[in-house]
Amino acid sequence: MLPDAEHPVVILDEPECWDLLLGSTLGRLAVSVRNQPEIYPVNFLAHDGKILLRTSQGDKLVQLTINNTVAFETDGRSANSVWSVLVKGVARELDTQAEIDAARQLPLRPWTPTHKGVFVEIEPTNVTGRRIAVGPEPE
Amino acid sequence: MLPDAEHPVVILDEPECWDLLLGSTLGRLAVSVRNQPEIYPVNFLAHDGKILLRTSQGDKLVQLTINNTVAFETDGRSANSVWSVLVKGVARELDTQAEIDAARQLPLRPWTPTHKGVFVEIEPTNVTGRRIAVGPEPE
Repeated sequence: MLPDAEHPVVILDEPECWDLLLGSTLGRLAVSVRNQPEIYPVNFLAHDGKILLRTSQGDKLVQLTINNTVAFETDGRSANSVWSVLVKGVARELDTQAEIDAARQLPLRPWTPTHKGVFVEIEPTNVTGRRIAVGPEPE
Repeated sequence: MLPDAEHPVVILDEPECWDLLLGSTLGRLAVSVRNQPEIYPVNFLAHDGKILLRTSQGDKLVQLTINNTVAFETDGRSANSVWSVLVKGVARELDTQAEIDAARQLPLRPWTPTHKGVFVEIEPTNVTGRRIAVGPEPE
């Protein structure tokens, strides 16, 4: 269902959210470290009911070790609406060779032509989304 | 300076970050509540060295009252690179009538044609950005 002037905000059900996740590649990962928020743009792949990221060793990974409860967001725009999908879940680094080998077969490409050797998987605990009509403000 | 194969990641200086912020309208606000991350897509206006958002009463505002240290991100893509700008700062609701009246004059429009009566301003403490070449992964 698309939003309109009468119903400007449409709540997306979980299959609709996954459909949008599967069609997107750019998201943002939010983590909390010592109760301070951090946010990182990431490219990602939705696969097998999970969100897969690649990253290099660094702050992001260290922070996930400190607090692996994450929020992940992606959004987009169509002609008359904007949509966003929010995934809450638990992140972990893939650590067995079998998992890493399987992940390498997937079409998840890092943006930057530097090595991004580590795969991180988000296991969702909650997936929600909204689609909002773009329109003028009411009087 | 644009990134290239030899220098795939370019760190943006603060004027470059503000130039990109001033040209963008869609960002994401991350907050931390009881050490759990939350992330919200928001439309925004960079103005006078600050980030201005509009929202309706709700979770987002309640959470800012609990923890007003925020992270804000916006990003975009050009032909051969992606860029992102990250603002860390302190959020507060505009509360004097003079501030609210001044904010109403600014070209900050909510997406949704529902009332979004509350202005929130982020006073930055740190503004950073990167531009990353989009290219194939090295062998």
